[in-house]
Formats: sequence, C-alpha cells, structure tokens
Amino acid sequence: MRSKEQYLSSLSDGREVYYRGKRVHNVADHQVLRISALHSAKLYDMKDRIVKDGGEEISAYLKVPRGSGDLLQRHKVIYDHTTACNGIFNISQAIGSDAIFALMVVSAKVDRETGSSYHERVRRFWEYVAKNDLTMATAQTDVKGDRTKRPSQQSDLDMYVRIVERRQDGIVVRGAKAHTTQAAVADEILVIPTRAMTQEDKDFAVAFSVPASTKGLKMIVRPIDEVEGNSSSLLSKVDHEHETLTIFDDVFVPWDRVFMAGEYKYAGALANLFATFHRFTAVSYRASMANLFLGAASLVAKANGIQDARHVKEDLLTILSYKEFLRMSAISAANEPLIDEGVAIPNPLYTNLGKLYTNTHFHEVVKSLIDVAGGIISTMPSEEDLRNPEERDMIFKYLRGAEPGQRRVQLLKLVKELASSSLTGYWLTMMLHAEGSVEASKIALLREYDLREAEEMVEKILDQSKG
Amino acid sequence: MRSKEQYLSSLSDGREVYYRGKRVHNVADHQVLRISALHSAKLYDMKDRIVKDGGEEISAYLKVPRGSGDLLQRHKVIYDHTTACNGIFNISQAIGSDAIFALMVVSAKVDRETGSSYHERVRRFWEYVAKNDLTMATAQTDVKGDRTKRPSQQSDLDMYVRIVERRQDGIVVRGAKAHTTQAAVADEILVIPTRAMTQEDKDFAVAFSVPASTKGLKMIVRPIDEVEGNSSSLLSKVDHEHETLTIFDDVFVPWDRVFMAGEYKYAGALANLFATFHRFTAVSYRASMANLFLGAASLVAKANGIQDARHVKEDLLTILSYKEFLRMSAISAANEPLIDEGVAIPNPLYTNLGKLYTNTHFHEVVKSLIDVAGGIISTMPSEEDLRNPEERDMIFKYLRGAEPGQRRVQLLKLVKELASSSLTGYWLTMMLHAEGSVEASKIALLREYDLREAEEMVEKILDQSKG
Amino acid sequence: MRSKEQYLSSLSDGREVYYRGKRVHNVADHQVLRISALHSAKLYDMKDRIVKDGGEEISAYLKVPRGSGDLLQRHKVIYDHTTACNGIFNISQAIGSDAIFALMVVSAKVDRETGSSYHERVRRFWEYVAKNDLTMATAQTDVKGDRTKRPSQQSDLDMYVRIVERRQDGIVVRGAKAHTTQAAVADEILVIPTRAMTQEDKDFAVAFSVPASTKGLKMIVRPIDEVEGNSSSLLSKVDHEHETLTIFDDVFVPWDRVFMAGEYKYAGALANLFATFHRFTAVSYRASMANLFLGAASLVAKANGIQDARHVKEDLLTILSYKEFLRMSAISAANEPLIDEGVAIPNPLYTNLGKLYTNTHFHEVVKSLIDVAGGIISTMPSEEDLRNPEERDMIFKYLRGAEPGQRRVQLLKLVKELASSSLTGYWLTMMLHAEGSVEASKIALLREYDLREAEEMVEKILDQSKG
Amino acid sequence: MRSKEQYLSSLSDGREVYYRGKRVHNVADHQVLRISALHSAKLYDMKDRIVKDGGEEISAYLKVPRGSGDLLQRHKVIYDHTTACNGIFNISQAIGSDAIFALMVVSAKVDRETGSSYHERVRRFWEYVAKNDLTMATAQTDVKGDRTKRPSQQSDLDMYVRIVERRQDGIVVRGAKAHTTQAAVADEILVIPTRAMTQEDKDFAVAFSVPASTKGLKMIVRPIDEVEGNSSSLLSKVDHEHETLTIFDDVFVPWDRVFMAGEYKYAGALANLFATFHRFTAVSYRASMANLFLGAASLVAKANGIQDARHVKEDLLTILSYKEFLRMSAISAANEPLIDEGVAIPNPLYTNLGKLYTNTHFHEVVKSLIDVAGGIISTMPSEEDLRNPEERDMIFKYLRGAEPGQRRVQLLKLVKELASSSLTGYWLTMMLHAEGSVEASKIALLREYDLREAEEMVEKILDQSKG
Repeated sequence: MRSKEQYLSSLSDGREVYYRGKRVHNVADHQVLRISALHSAKLYDMKDRIVKDGGEEISAYLKVPRGSGDLLQRHKVIYDHTTACNGIFNISQAIGSDAIFALMVVSAKVDRETGSSYHERVRRFWEYVAKNDLTMATAQTDVKGDRTKRPSQQSDLDMYVRIVERRQDGIVVRGAKAHTTQAAVADEILVIPTRAMTQEDKDFAVAFSVPASTKGLKMIVRPIDEVEGNSSSLLSKVDHEHETLTIFDDVFVPWDRVFMAGEYKYAGALANLFATFHRFTAVSYRASMANLFLGAASLVAKANGIQDARHVKEDLLTILSYKEFLRMSAISAANEPLIDEGVAIPNPLYTNLGKLYTNTHFHEVVKSLIDVAGGIISTMPSEEDLRNPEERDMIFKYLRGAEPGQRRVQLLKLVKELASSSLTGYWLTMMLHAEGSVEASKIALLREYDLREAEEMVEKILDQSKG
Repeated sequence: MRSKEQYLSSLSDGREVYYRGKRVHNVADHQVLRISALHSAKLYDMKDRIVKDGGEEISAYLKVPRGSGDLLQRHKVIYDHTTACNGIFNISQAIGSDAIFALMVVSAKVDRETGSSYHERVRRFWEYVAKNDLTMATAQTDVKGDRTKRPSQQSDLDMYVRIVERRQDGIVVRGAKAHTTQAAVADEILVIPTRAMTQEDKDFAVAFSVPASTKGLKMIVRPIDEVEGNSSSLLSKVDHEHETLTIFDDVFVPWDRVFMAGEYKYAGALANLFATFHRFTAVSYRASMANLFLGAASLVAKANGIQDARHVKEDLLTILSYKEFLRMSAISAANEPLIDEGVAIPNPLYTNLGKLYTNTHFHEVVKSLIDVAGGIISTMPSEEDLRNPEERDMIFKYLRGAEPGQRRVQLLKLVKELASSSLTGYWLTMMLHAEGSVEASKIALLREYDLREAEEMVEKILDQSKG
Repeated sequence: MRSKEQYLSSLSDGREVYYRGKRVHNVADHQVLRISALHSAKLYDMKDRIVKDGGEEISAYLKVPRGSGDLLQRHKVIYDHTTACNGIFNISQAIGSDAIFALMVVSAKVDRETGSSYHERVRRFWEYVAKNDLTMATAQTDVKGDRTKRPSQQSDLDMYVRIVERRQDGIVVRGAKAHTTQAAVADEILVIPTRAMTQEDKDFAVAFSVPASTKGLKMIVRPIDEVEGNSSSLLSKVDHEHETLTIFDDVFVPWDRVFMAGEYKYAGALANLFATFHRFTAVSYRASMANLFLGAASLVAKANGIQDARHVKEDLLTILSYKEFLRMSAISAANEPLIDEGVAIPNPLYTNLGKLYTNTHFHEVVKSLIDVAGGIISTMPSEEDLRNPEERDMIFKYLRGAEPGQRRVQLLKLVKELASSSLTGYWLTMMLHAEGSVEASKIALLREYDLREAEEMVEKILDQSKG
Repeated sequence: MRSKEQYLSSLSDGREVYYRGKRVHNVADHQVLRISALHSAKLYDMKDRIVKDGGEEISAYLKVPRGSGDLLQRHKVIYDHTTACNGIFNISQAIGSDAIFALMVVSAKVDRETGSSYHERVRRFWEYVAKNDLTMATAQTDVKGDRTKRPSQQSDLDMYVRIVERRQDGIVVRGAKAHTTQAAVADEILVIPTRAMTQEDKDFAVAFSVPASTKGLKMIVRPIDEVEGNSSSLLSKVDHEHETLTIFDDVFVPWDRVFMAGEYKYAGALANLFATFHRFTAVSYRASMANLFLGAASLVAKANGIQDARHVKEDLLTILSYKEFLRMSAISAANEPLIDEGVAIPNPLYTNLGKLYTNTHFHEVVKSLIDVAGGIISTMPSEEDLRNPEERDMIFKYLRGAEPGQRRVQLLKLVKELASSSLTGYWLTMMLHAEGSVEASKIALLREYDLREAEEMVEKILDQSKG
C-alpha cells in the first residue's frame, strides 16, 4: 500500500492553493500547511489500517459495510485513529468513503429508474481510490447566497455549484463550496449536492470527483490562528485540519467521474445519505476528541488540588456523558443498520440523535473544562515570557498548585488551547455547524420518525375506554 | 406453564395487606387492588413469553443472560410487554429475575471466599421460581431513618432490615423496606441490602426470599389516587402498579431461602449489581412508557390543529429523544456486557447513563406534553359533567378543536391523566427516585469510570511538546 | 367596607354553577366549592387592604397605578396577601383590576378615534366595583376550536365569544371562555378579547361585564381532585382556587356594561395590555407561592438529615433563584413603567421575561423538591392508614428520619401534595399556560423588543473599521 | 479635571511591565499595549462623567452611593460608558471605587473594634484619587497554590500576598495576584484580601494601595492574541483590556496607604463586600457587552436572509434574555440596597443572582450567535486574502448572502471575532471566572439567604392541619 512519503510527495502537483493572500506552491513544505499535510499523512502509519476485502488488501475506510459488524468496526477504526492523532480527526479517507458509499446506494437507484450507468462509474472510482490508496476531501456545502431562495432563484446563479456546460466528453462546473476539510492536502475532491433540488434546480443536481490539481479549481485555506495566533499552543502545532473555500472556476469533469448530472429527484437522497454516513463518522471521532477535554479536566483538577470537589465531579460527568452519549449513538446506529442496495447504512435515527447531541452540548463541555481549570488559562503569561530567564522562575513559583509550577503551567497551556483560545472559538463553531445545521437536522429527524407505534398505543387506550 | 387464573386464585393466601386503613382479605377481589393483580396477571397471556433454556421451557424473564444476544432479547421482551400493557411496566418476573441474577454472581464469590453454599441455594430458588412460574417483588430500599447515619448508628436499629436472631433452622428478621413494587400481588418477596455495609453493620447484610403470606410480613399499599382521585382516568383503571411499605415484624426465614447473612463485604456489590440489572430493566420499560407521552402529544397536536407549529415539533423532539436515548442506552449496554461468573451483566456505564437520563429528563417530557395540549387539561369539566345530559352537548360543542369535541375530550382525558393529575405527580417522583437516587448514581458512575484513556491522551501531548 | 360575611352571603344569588355533573345551588355551602369561596373571602380580612385614594378609602387592588411607587406597592400587596393565604393566590380583586386598568387605557384611545364613550363607562364600572368592594373574575381565553383558524373562519362560529345581536338596550353574546379563575365565587364576570382581530372578526371584538347570576351564564367548575382525590392533603383543604368553563348562552349585556363592541383594531391592544397587567400580578403571586416549595424543601431536607449535602443545596438554589427572578422581574417592571393615558403600566419587557421564566422553569422547582424529599412521597401509606391505630405506630416508627416520624410524616404529606399529587399536575399545567402560552409570549416579546441600540453598537464598530 | 493626554503621558513612569518576554518601557507607546492605554484614556472623554458631590466636581465613579438613586445612576454610567467603548468595559475608575467603597464600610467597623484609624486613611486616599482623577486597578485574587490549603498551610507561603515585615514607616509585602485587569495602565494598584482568614493567616489579611511604578512591583501582561492572533479582528484593535500577573517582590507600603494589616476577622467581610460592589459593576457592563452579541446576531441574520426563521428568533431571545436578566439584577439590587456605615450597598442577593446568571449562561449567548451566523465564521478566508486583488472579488462574490459580499464579509469578521476566535475563548473564561468562581458564589448566596419566611409559611400550614 501507499506510504506516507509517497502521499506527501504527491502533493506537489501544481494545485492552486492560497494561504493568507499568497499562492502556496508546495503545501507539504509550507510552514503552516505542512502540519495538516503531516496530519493526513499519519493515516499511512496507522495500525490495523489494512483489512482484507474479498481477498484483496484494502484500507479499512474503503471497505463497504455490509452489516452491523462492519459498522462497529468502522466506528472503532475512526475512534482509534483519532486517538492516535491526539484527539484530532483524520479525515483523509473517512469523508470520501462516506460519500462513495452514499453514491453507491443512490446511483443504483438512479440507474434503475433512468437506465443510466452511474453505479458502474462509482464502483470504478472506488476501485481506483482503493487501489491507489488515495485521500479525498468531500465538498458538499454550497456558499448558498440568500438562504431564503432556492439555487435557481439566486440573483447570482453561481451560489450553488452547477453545470454550466454539457459536452461530449464531460461537463463544465462553476460555483463554490464552503469549508471543505483538508481539501488542500487531498488527492481527490469529491463533490455532492447540499440539498434536495426541484426541476428548476436541475443543473445544480451534480456530483463528481476531480483531482485536486485540476485546472480551474482554487482553494483558499482559512487562517490557522490556532498555530500562528497562540504561541503557547501544544496540540495544533502537531495536529489540526484545515478547511478551504473551494472555488470551481469553470472546471471540466470527464464523464467517467460524473456521478450525478441533472437527476434532481435524487439530489436530496444523496445529500441525506452522505450526511448519515458522515454523521456516523462524526460521532465516532468526536467521542475520541472528547477525551481531550475529559483528560485535561481530570489532570488540571489534580494540579489545582480540587479533584474531590463536588462541582468538579459534576464537570467531569458533563464531559464524560457527552463522550459516552456519542459512543452510545454509534453503537446503536451500527447495531440496527438499514440495508439498502446491499450497503449497511448506520441507523439514521441513532446517528442523528448523536449528531444533534454533539451539536448542542459541546459548549457545555468547554464550559466544564473552564470551570475546573480556573481563570488563569485566559490571563497567564505568554510562551515568550516563559522563555525569558528573568521571568520564568517567578512564573513557575507563582503558578504552582497542588503540583509544581512547571507541570501545572504545561498543563494550563494545553487547557488554554482547548478552552480559551482561537482553537476554542473554531471548535465551538465547527461542533455546532459541521455535518449540517441543528435546525435542518431536527426537522429531518422528526420528518423521518415513525410516530405510529406511539400513536397506536394511545389509540388502543382510547378504544378500550369506550368499550 | 402457569395460567392467569392459577396466579389470581393463588393470591387468596392470607397475606397481611392493608389498603386505606383496612385489612384486605383478598387482593384479587378488592375493588382497587384487583387492578394491579389483573395487571400482573397479564404476564401469563404475553406472546413469546416462554423460551427454551437447555431443553426446558422457561419464562423469558428467568433465562439467565449469557451474552449480548440474551440481553438484547431481554430488552425487547420488557419493551414489548410494557407496550402490551399500555405503556405500564409489568414487573412481575422482571425485578425478581434482576435480583436472582445478581445473587447468582455474588453468591459464587461469597462461597469462594467463605466456603458457604449460597450459590446452590440461589440456583435452587431460581429452579423453584422457574418451575412454578412465580411472580416476585424485590424489596431493597430500607426506610433508612437518619440519612447521615449508617445502619448500626441509628437511634432505632430497625431502620434497616436486620437479623435479630440466628436459629438452627433459619434467621429472624426485623425492619421495613419502602416502596416495594407490586408486593401485595406477588408470590415471593425477595429481600436484598440497599447499600454497602461495614463490619458494624454485619446484621444488616442480609438477603432472602419469603412467600408473601409469611407470618409477620405486613404490607401497606399506597393510596391509588390515580384511580380513586381522578374520575376521568382511562389508563390507570386498566393498568397500574402499586408499592407497599413492607414491614418485617420478626419474620422467620429458613436457611434454604437465606442468600446472605452477615457477609457485609459483599452487601455493596450485591446492591450495585442488582441495581445494574434493574436499571437495564428500567430503561427498557421506560422507553415503551415514553410512547404514551409521544403518542399523546402527536395526537393532541392534531386534535388542536397545531401539529405543524415549530414549538410543537420541538416538544415532540424532546419526547422522542428521551425515548430513544433510553433505547440507545439499553442497546449499548447489551452490546458491551461484562461477563462475570458466567452471567452477562449489562454494561454498567451505558446502563447508568440511561438511568440518569431518565431520572433527570422526565419532567421535561411532561412539560412538553403539557405545552402541546394546552391549559384545558387542568380546567376541563369532570367525567361526571360529561355524564350529565344537560351539560354534555355544551361541553362537546365548546371543546372541539380541529377534530370533533367527543374525540378531543376523550384524548384530553388521557392527556390530563398523563400530564396533569395525581398520576403525573406519582410518576414525576418515581421517574426521579426509582432505581436509586440521582446523586448516588452520579457518584457511583464517576467512581467506576476509567479516566486513564483520556488522561493518557493528554499526557502524550504534554510529553510530545517537551521533546 | 364590605365584610367577609356580606361577600359570602351574596353568593346565594341563583347563579348557574355545575360541579361534577350537578347544579350547585349555593356555592358557599357546597362541601367542596365552599373552600374556594372561603379562600376568596379571606380578601376581606387582609391587613393593609384599604388605602386612601384621593380622600376616599378604596381597596388597594383598585387603586389605579400612576407611577413606580404604586406598582411596587401593588406587587407587595399581591405578594403579601398570597403569603397570608398560605402561598395560594387570592385573585378576587386582582385580575379584575388588571382588566379595568387595561380597559381604562384602551377605551380612552378608542373614544378618541371613534367618538365613543367607553372610557366613561369603564370609569363608572370601576367606581361601582370600588364602592361595593366587589370581587371579579376575568374571562379572556376563548375555547378557540381549530387553532389554525381565525374566529370568523371557524366551522362553528361560537368558538370565540361573539355578539349575536345588537339591541337598543345592549348586546347579546354567545360563546364560551375556558378556565376562568374563581368565576363561580365572583360577583362580576369581566370579559375581554383573547387576541387581535381583523375586520372579519368584528363581532368577536367584545368586552363587557355581567354579574355572575346573569341569565344564560353557565359555569362548569373543574373537579377539585386536589381535595377529593388526595385524602392526605393539607393545603388544598384550606386554600385553593377553581376554574370554570364559562358559557355565554345568549347572554344580554346592557350598554353601560359594554366596553368594546366591534372596535376590532383595538382588540389586540386590549388583550395585550390586560396580559401585561396580569402577568405583573402573576410574577408577584408566584414569587410568594414559590416559598411553599422553598420552605418545604428546606424543612424536609432537615427532616431527612441531608440539609448539608451539596446536591440539596443545588436544589434549594434552583427554587430560590426561581422565586427571586420573579421578584426581580416585578421590581424592575415597577421601576421602569410606561405611562399611558395617565396609567402606569408595568414595563412589558421585564414583566414578560418574568412571565416566561415562571412558565419554563416551574417544572424544575417541582423536580428539585422531589429530589430533596425522596421517593417516599409517592409511596407512603394513606391518611386512612394513619388513622388506623393498628398501623399508625408502625408507620411513624418506620418513617422517622433525622426527626421523629410524626413530624416527618406531616411534612411528607405536604410535600406529597406539592410535588407528587393531583395538585402537582394541576400546577405544572397552570404555571406553563396561565397568562398566555409560552410560544405566543416569546413571539410578542421579540416583536416588541427594540434591537436598535444593539444593532447601532455593531454598525459603529463596522464603520470604525472601514475608516 | 484630568485630560486624556495627562493620563497617557503619566504612564511613562518607569513601571516594570513585561509583555511577551520583554520589558516594556512605555506602555502608551507599545504597539499592542497602547490599545489598552487608549481604551482606558477614553474615560476622560466620557459624556456626563463629572458629577457634583457636595459642591465639588468629582468623577461619577467616585461618588459614594448613599441610596437607590445613586446606585441606579452608577449602573447607568457603567452601562453607558461600556456602550461608548463599543461594548468593552472601561474599568479604570470602576473597580477601584468598588474597592474604596468596601474599604470605607469595613474600615469603620475595624476602627470601632480595635481603635485603629483605617477609615480616615481610606477617606484621604479617596480624596487623593478623586482630586487627581486617577485610574486604579484592584488586585484581589491570589495565585493560591494548593486550593485545598489555607494561606498559612501552603508549602510556599508566598502563594497569598502577605506582610513579610512590619516597619516603623510601613509594611513590606510579598506574593502575587493573578489576573489584575488593566494594571499595566493604571495609576494605582489597590490590593485587598481574596478570602476569609483565620488567626494563623493573620499576615495575609492585608489591604493597601501603591502607585504602579512602585519598586518591586512587576506586572506580566497576558498575550493579547485577540489582536496579534486574529488579523481580521475589528473590535479588539480598538478596545480591549488586559490582565497581569502582578508580583509583589518585597514591596514597601507606607502606613498611610495601608488599609488592613492583620485584622484577619475582617478579611472575609472586606473580600465579600468588594465582591458585591464589583459584581454590581459587572452585571452593569455585561448588559451592555451583551449588545455586541445581540446586535451582531440580528444583523448577521439579516445578511444571511434568515431573520424570520423560528430558531433564529429563539437565538435572539436567548441573547436578549441574558442581557435583560443582568439589567433586572442591577435595577433590583439598586432598588433594595443595604445601607451600612452610611454607604448604599447593592442588594447582595440580586447582585449575586445576576452574577451567577452571567457566569452560567454566557456560553449559551456565544452558541446562539454561532447558530445564527453559520460555520463560515470559522472557515472564511483571512484578512490577508481579502487584501489580495486576485482573490478579493472571488471571495466577495461567493460570500454574499441576502446582502452583498462586502457587507456580509465585514459583518462575518466581527462575528468571528465575537464567537469564533481567541477573543471568544478569552471571554468564555472571563465570563465564568471573573468576580469569583461559580461554586463559591453559590455557597455564599445560599448561606446568606434567609429561609425563614419560606419555612414559616410551611410551618403555618402544618400547624393549621393539626388543629
């Protein structure tokens, strides 16, 4: 299989990446962007990464789930690899396989109705990715313009990625997708629709994949303030992921990489099914990520000497409940999958309940860690002060707790990074919005929920009492 | 197997039951208590109640769980039977088997350490119960007196059930257990300790079982206000369970029914293990019970014509999340059991997280249903008014909603019962306190939680940053 | 001024009251209804009830507020009288004066626009009530039928009280109002619209007052289960209020008691202004009512011996915060009144924030008390058991805590009544729905809120950064 | 009175300030620290800043409150000045006067008991500050070391500021105070104890004031990441405050500036009274600060085109309730002051309820703004990208919403700063911990609360029912 080095060297392929207003010529060499490249590269060193699939060796991420066992295994792989990456999700093959699985199911249905041959294209693309052990970014969320209007109603039609030309050999697409994770260090950029479409929105019902170096594809990376804006950061300097504003400036896609092109009736199904797979992925990695907060809270409580205080225990419970609710969600979703077109889909109800829980409770996790740590995480001297010999001893002397200053300060730096820094702000936003907004998820969850069992129980009581 | 009629006729055995200040001579004939007897009797009509266990037919409740499959099945049986009983738990063999399983595990350990033969007694008792297909009540919670004092420190030593005499043929016990569910209609009353004990508390470390008609055993049933105090009740008139203050007025227990008698070191383990089994039972039945609220909210929303209102959807989501979190807890607990002495124990972490969730969120379920239903559930005319022909038509005329008055009033009666009646008050209390207090559960959960994985992840980051 | 006896004897006036399917001929003599009559009668014994108003002696409730001082005084009177009635609101002159004040303001505006003379009628009615020291019920909430339809769109037009005939000497009204508090023991029944109306709804824009004994007026009282359905109740047997379904079966109202008759543009303003006054009243009485829960929690914690436990302190804080937030709301609303037509209106923002707080947090107050008290409040023996000499001593023996059984049982009876009885269910509903639904209040609050100060602060920062 | 320029030029006084590991020789000229200096300087331009006090002109902050009117005025001044500083508190004379008022009250009591003359010293210090119109920082929170140990039990006695020498002409103090706001740009550093002390802790019961340039006083300023680590920040570049680790390296204080020196019995009273005054200040400024979130949420909702969505309204309500609860707290605290030693103290109950509300709900304010704004605030291109002409137009094109890209991006930059940046992390911590921890506040609030009114109401009901 592919090595870390092969992956890193492949990134120097002329892709059009911008960072802080400058074109980046080799992301793997860039002072900041190399961190996300190295983070993705860790994939290739992961233990238990390769599994057997019908005789072939294949990345565990790309193994198509066929039942509960496969899904439980997928949960475990994502959880374990996140743990191996210091609590930071490694999206490199996870989100792409989420999209491929969704495409496999939906393309089979489209083909059946329209006589198209999308499914075969998807299958070949999967083989290509698997054989070459590629990383993928998935770009779903369009920039959307005026949220009250459908794609075809926007004053500027480019607010959703769309087909601007259909050619003999393929399609030309234009538009932009927001917050595509790790796009600047991925091999392939997979694109799928962000919502259900109507007939008028036909040209916006488009799914495809292109190499990151494709002409016309531009990626503007967000500023990595958690590294450049926090000199005391410990974690982000080692592991973080970036997002890009991903612009398709009349990008050509050959037909064999086009997976939907106008079949608007299926755009919603594809968007939702990808969301279900990806939310299952999300609850899995976030459960591991929560350990950062849990471990930090437990250790800083001891460093402060307050580990036995009742309110500290309450804080620890808040964090561990958050983590374990996510695990319960993943276990239950894996345990009761839907099987569709031969693919095991994580139970959407349990997946979405877990997803909503993480969206709406992460800010309490942050609050709990802050509560345990104390205000010092926001007012402590800088890393540069610690390096000044005139100041260092004073700082260590005065910042001791129940443990020596050196130890406690090191811990406080990490807690600051988690709970009182630009990383905190970034995470608060990501944990609320990534994988779909809370409002949309609530509406979807309720719409899909079968209320009949409950209603029938009540109707039965009403009937009995009439008798 | 035993029939409903055999069970009901067996209740006329001279047991000492009090209801509203009067001795009840035959609970199955009593105007009110017969409802809980008939409710328990439904057990004997349940579909899929009998399973094979090593060639023998046995009640599904009494089948000792050996792995995930058995626990998932147990969850399903409890959920389904609750549904068949209109959302009201049928405890008749559930709580007793929870206690037996805990006794099986703990007695094996006691025997191993002390050379006793409790395990064999427990096994024989299990065979006896299984062969005769008996119902059981389990009495755990002592009346406790001053909560700041241990059993042996109480001014009146009878505040915890204790051994007052050890005889050649058995022991004599005294004390009282609070809120024993369905005791007055059970065949056997199983007793286990309520907490960990110290050497001084030796005489309080006692577990045993006696028939409900045993001399000296007195049961005072709580007033069933949900039937007698709400003339418009629909559900409680058909299904409810009662609790008793269960007094052991120097009750003799022969040795073959004594399962612990002084082994204080194991009192805590037994109390906790029973709690784990019983909390797994609790999240299972409560998930079904939640359907009462979910179905009622959905139907009354339609009757009011507000089913599409955003806040109504939020209310439905609150209730369905409550229900499904409980199911997630049960599925996850079954999926990752502990195996001890050959018995599969539901994962205590997931069981307890589910238990805490139901304790602390049930009042929001009630609030959500009230919010959907409207104030009319607390101010509507009485059942007697509906029976007065002069008033009935006026009431139906004016209480119509988006559906006719007759239908809506019938529904409102049930919603009142669920959310604005003495049943509501009773349930709010039960859902918070049954199966152990919130505070105790929180402390236990945190004490048993392994924080090492989380702490190690943080230590690893700290180590890296030193290098 | 009027005496308690004069009030009680006046109730025997032929009013058409139904209770549990029977016509009640004298509410003051009826076994159950007399309790609400005696409760209302307590008004006439209240200390500091009479104040000077321009030389005249007048009930403090009827004094028209002209500034902060009057409103603070009104808050204090309502709080103190609720306290004197054991935490139960005494609505007898409170809600009626809330309506009169609203009518005073709105009628002045209607007169100014339409040349009508409603204001003078309102003023005379106020004089009449004041001189005769009358009690009033205010009927606002129509039964509403299909909630998605306006009054004039209902399939049965009687779903909102309406003018069915306009005569030379007055109007004839038909319809029904839901949950009119203390109507069966009030002197006057004041009617005002429940919502904004459109031109099509003209006939539903009606306000008036009639004596409770007016022909065609029928009142069906809700069942008082908190007395009849809970034999151990202590509080409700002494103080409670009832609600009625109040039916106007073609009731004639002479012009001098008609305060709005078709001026649909002002129906919403009147509904809202009454709501503001009445919500100010509500936060005032509920602050006192909260003391029932606070005192009970504090005393039962001591009786259980757990007053120093951290979670008990958290429970007490929840309850006291609830109480004091309501007081803060009243103090702030009084401190920053709107003056309109010479009348001081409690600040609607602070009033409504307090109102929303009580709606949405009362269930947590109940939960907190339950948490402190323990499960015994729902499973304790009945009052009848306590009266049986055979059982009494056993019960007192075993229900002792850190205090003797007699004391603790007495306290537990009250806690049961507050937190685990039909009264609990009734209150949970009332605290959520009385004085308008949560959803309507939220929408109104946001609509009326002036966001400009906040928006301007942000625009200023944006402007600065452009410079 | 003093001018802005006089204040700024006075800062060049040799004070020992460190920033990012370097000694800062003139804070008013330092690239970053000048921002907090200029922020403080805004004080001198404030409208209505000067009031009459007994014929003298005096800064409104220094006017000793004598009743409700003064406190309401103080609330208004703080609120208005915060608004004038773009929602950022201007602490320059606020916290110092909070400390002086507390010292005035407590010193009078100490003098009365011990015959000391602290009160006169405090009065003269107040005159000095008032006449010279000085700014002050107040250093209260000691670094504390092991939180389980009292000051005199610490392994290193310097964990709480203490008297190391008592000389004829004054005292010498050693130790460090954490997070002293605006210390590096203040004229005077006021020191008061952080907690109650016992006899053993006598040397830690110390209060005094010294000029910021006093020998031995070292101030290490926290890194201002909200400016240096977020290139798109709009607000922090104009207004922010800093905190210092404030080290007393054997600092001499002459007797006339010593306000407590060993009177350990009063240390707790002084700490608490200062906290009460300062929390009143805090709820006042935070109410204005909340406008940043409210205005930003309202404007970004419009820019996104979602201002009418139900969940957006819910978010706005969350933020406005937060703001207005704080105002209710301040108004109520001002309205019911305690008068002690002639000084009006804001009602501690209402002050502390407001303080606890802001501690425990600020994270929901942040979450609400994030919910309205969308994930783009964490993934948008950097300020540097916006300055690159090649990228700018693309970015504005694709980041338009219901309003043009230029406008929306400007707004998103501010929202990012508020809700998804290092400022967010800093504020989350500050809002939870500033002015005392949640746990300590809860315990204090409950300890001081008079439960008797509530208990008596319950006892009365119990008594009635016995009769």
